[in-house]
Amino acid sequence: MSFWKRLFTGSESGDSEDLPYSNVLFSTDREIDLYELEELCDAVGWSRRPLRKVKKAIDHSFCVISMYEQKEQFKHLIGFARATSDHAFNATIWDVVVHPEYQGRGLGKTLMDRMISELRAADISNITLFADPQVVDFYRRLGFMADPEGIKGMFWYPE
Amino acid sequence: MSFWKRLFTGSESGDSEDLPYSNVLFSTDREIDLYELEELCDAVGWSRRPLRKVKKAIDHSFCVISMYEQKEQFKHLIGFARATSDHAFNATIWDVVVHPEYQGRGLGKTLMDRMISELRAADISNITLFADPQVVDFYRRLGFMADPEGIKGMFWYPE
Repeated sequence: MSFWKRLFTGSESGDSEDLPYSNVLFSTDREIDLYELEELCDAVGWSRRPLRKVKKAIDHSFCVISMYEQKEQFKHLIGFARATSDHAFNATIWDVVVHPEYQGRGLGKTLMDRMISELRAADISNITLFADPQVVDFYRRLGFMADPEGIKGMFWYPE
Repeated sequence: MSFWKRLFTGSESGDSEDLPYSNVLFSTDREIDLYELEELCDAVGWSRRPLRKVKKAIDHSFCVISMYEQKEQFKHLIGFARATSDHAFNATIWDVVVHPEYQGRGLGKTLMDRMISELRAADISNITLFADPQVVDFYRRLGFMADPEGIKGMFWYPE
C-alpha cells in the first residue's frame, strides 16, 4: 500500500489510489466536504443546490468518486462524479465535474475510467449518462455512444 | 376505501387505487411475482434476464409500479414500470411495459402519469428515460422532451 493510499483509507467504505499523477488521489468515500464540493461546482458555473439535497443525493448514489490534489498534508477536491443504479442492470452517471484549472490533463478521462471500472466491477452492463452538447465528443472518445439504435434521452420537467 | 383498494393493500409498502378502469389496479408494492413479470416481458418480446438480477433491480429501484387486471378474485399483471433515483434531484425510468392485449387504451399513459406523480411527490424534478425510436412520440405526448437544449442520451456497453 502506497503512502498516498494509506493516507486516504480512513473509512471502511473508502478506497483510493494514486493515478495518473502522483499527487492526484481518487476516493469512493461518501464523507465529502459539501462546502468544498459546492466550491468546485461554483468554479464550473453550475447552479447552486441545497446542500441538504446534495447530501441526500450522494447518500443514495450507487457510486461516488472524488478526485483530490494532495499538497503536503492538505488535499483539495478537484473533481467529482456519481452514479445512480438499480445495482443490477443500469447505471446513470451524474454531476461529472473537473475544476477548470485541472482540465485538459486527462483527469476527466481518468475519473470516468475509474467510474466505469467501479460499475463494471459491480456487473452493471448498461452505463448511461446525459451529456451537454459541449461534452458529447469527450464522452464519445471514452466509448459512449449517442442515441444508439435511435434510443433517445428524454426529460420531463415540472411546469 | 374502495373494495379494490382494500383487496390490494396487503403489505405496509403497498399502495393501490382503481384507475382508470374499475378492474385495473395499480400497486407500488415490490413483492411482485417474478415469473408473472417475466411472462409480461416475454409478451412484448424482451430478452430474458436472470430473475435473481431482476429481483435485485426491483429492490434497488426508487419506485416500482405494477398494473393489474382484476377478474373475480384473481389479478394478473398487465403492466410495469420502475425508476432509479438519487432520492433528491434525478430519476430515470426503466422497463416500462404494457401487455400487448391491453395497449391502445390509455393504460400506458396512466401508468406513466402515476410514475411521474410518485416521483414529483418525492420532490424529484429531473425525470429522465431512454426511449426506443417507436415510443419517442408516446413519451412526447406525456410531456417528455428529447434532447432538450442539445443534451444527448449516451450509452457505454462492455466490449
